[in-house]
Amino acid sequence: MPTDASLLTRLDAMGLSLPAPAIPVGEFILWRREGSMIFLAGQICEKAGKPWPTGVYGTHVSLGDARHGAQLIGLQLLRTLRDALDGDLGRVRQVMMVRGFVTAAPGMGDYPVVINACSELFIALWGEAGRHARTSVGVAQLPLNATVEIDAAFAVD
Amino acid sequence: MPTDASLLTRLDAMGLSLPAPAIPVGEFILWRREGSMIFLAGQICEKAGKPWPTGVYGTHVSLGDARHGAQLIGLQLLRTLRDALDGDLGRVRQVMMVRGFVTAAPGMGDYPVVINACSELFIALWGEAGRHARTSVGVAQLPLNATVEIDAAFAVD
Amino acid sequence: MPTDASLLTRLDAMGLSLPAPAIPVGEFILWRREGSMIFLAGQICEKAGKPWPTGVYGTHVSLGDARHGAQLIGLQLLRTLRDALDGDLGRVRQVMMVRGFVTAAPGMGDYPVVINACSELFIALWGEAGRHARTSVGVAQLPLNATVEIDAAFAVD
Repeated sequence: MPTDASLLTRLDAMGLSLPAPAIPVGEFILWRREGSMIFLAGQICEKAGKPWPTGVYGTHVSLGDARHGAQLIGLQLLRTLRDALDGDLGRVRQVMMVRGFVTAAPGMGDYPVVINACSELFIALWGEAGRHARTSVGVAQLPLNATVEIDAAFAVD
Repeated sequence: MPTDASLLTRLDAMGLSLPAPAIPVGEFILWRREGSMIFLAGQICEKAGKPWPTGVYGTHVSLGDARHGAQLIGLQLLRTLRDALDGDLGRVRQVMMVRGFVTAAPGMGDYPVVINACSELFIALWGEAGRHARTSVGVAQLPLNATVEIDAAFAVD
Repeated sequence: MPTDASLLTRLDAMGLSLPAPAIPVGEFILWRREGSMIFLAGQICEKAGKPWPTGVYGTHVSLGDARHGAQLIGLQLLRTLRDALDGDLGRVRQVMMVRGFVTAAPGMGDYPVVINACSELFIALWGEAGRHARTSVGVAQLPLNATVEIDAAFAVD
């Protein structure tokens, strides 16, 4: 598996970097580990610490912005995961499961394409080990009116 | 626990059979295993490779069709699980958790009856070991406008 | 970790007590254990065995009632967990993950505050070990028209 340094280099080559740690909106923490499994709390899309994009995909929010939001969540999840691993993403063994939630307008049954932007990030970093089982659901409402929320589970050393 | 052959015989006696492998709609894979746990990706209801039924339970879709769709998903999940176990469903130890999502019209708070059709399939195959924890949620939208989506976790040898 | 007796005393001091076992609405059971992980089925808010509150948070249901419902679910989950642990909540090691679902009116993006009422209960009992990863989703419909549904996973001895 790639080292932490090589993963950060890969991100950098994509023009991406890990954000500041997220601040939970509510009485929860960002991760829990039991054995080799780490469960990450659901995170909403944010830019500069504020929910972005907000509103309904297909009504107020374009596919491009919704996908950008999903990628930003992917980076937030990676940041949380790295903190959970004492700063060493090299200890990731495989991505297990991703759950994506999108506030999607009626008829926007293509919303899994939004969640793909997060999945593609994990695959770009880890290749085959970055692939994962996934469930994507179109929902009525997300915290702070965010367009996208994603949580994930990883197997780690 | 029943052998793979006896499970297939049981399905056959119910007039059911395992479908062709599903094709993920999006950048994900159908399952991941870590230790004794297998997580299956959410699958939507399909017939002959196309989403069926589609639309909202209680508006466009009858209870019978929605339940039929949920049973078809159960068979797809079994197919995926069998592939994950090198063709041997006899290695299933217990069904752990099922998550069911239904696009349900307002007031259709009986939609867990739809998900029952999948749960009943697992119980018919494994009896007590086929029973499972479950969460059923009524949602705004599912991939490709499907009426039902279900994912599941299994404990296996 | 606190003993079962001290946890019940703590609940009592908060004016709370464990309810009668829940009755699943559908073909599922209330929990499954594999290794050190217990997965609890989603439970809806109930009072005296009937769904309460019902309807949409922000339309028919006040924040106070919705939070009360979420706390009642927390107690139901604890009751299930205690049954799963042969009556000994002292075997809980940590709360892993909570999933909260709220039928929330458009614009009610503060609904995680509802789920907080369940999270706060776990933290009041176990302190740091009671904290958990969490995903909260606003949904179209819950079983029997309930306002809140919550499931959870625990690590136990």
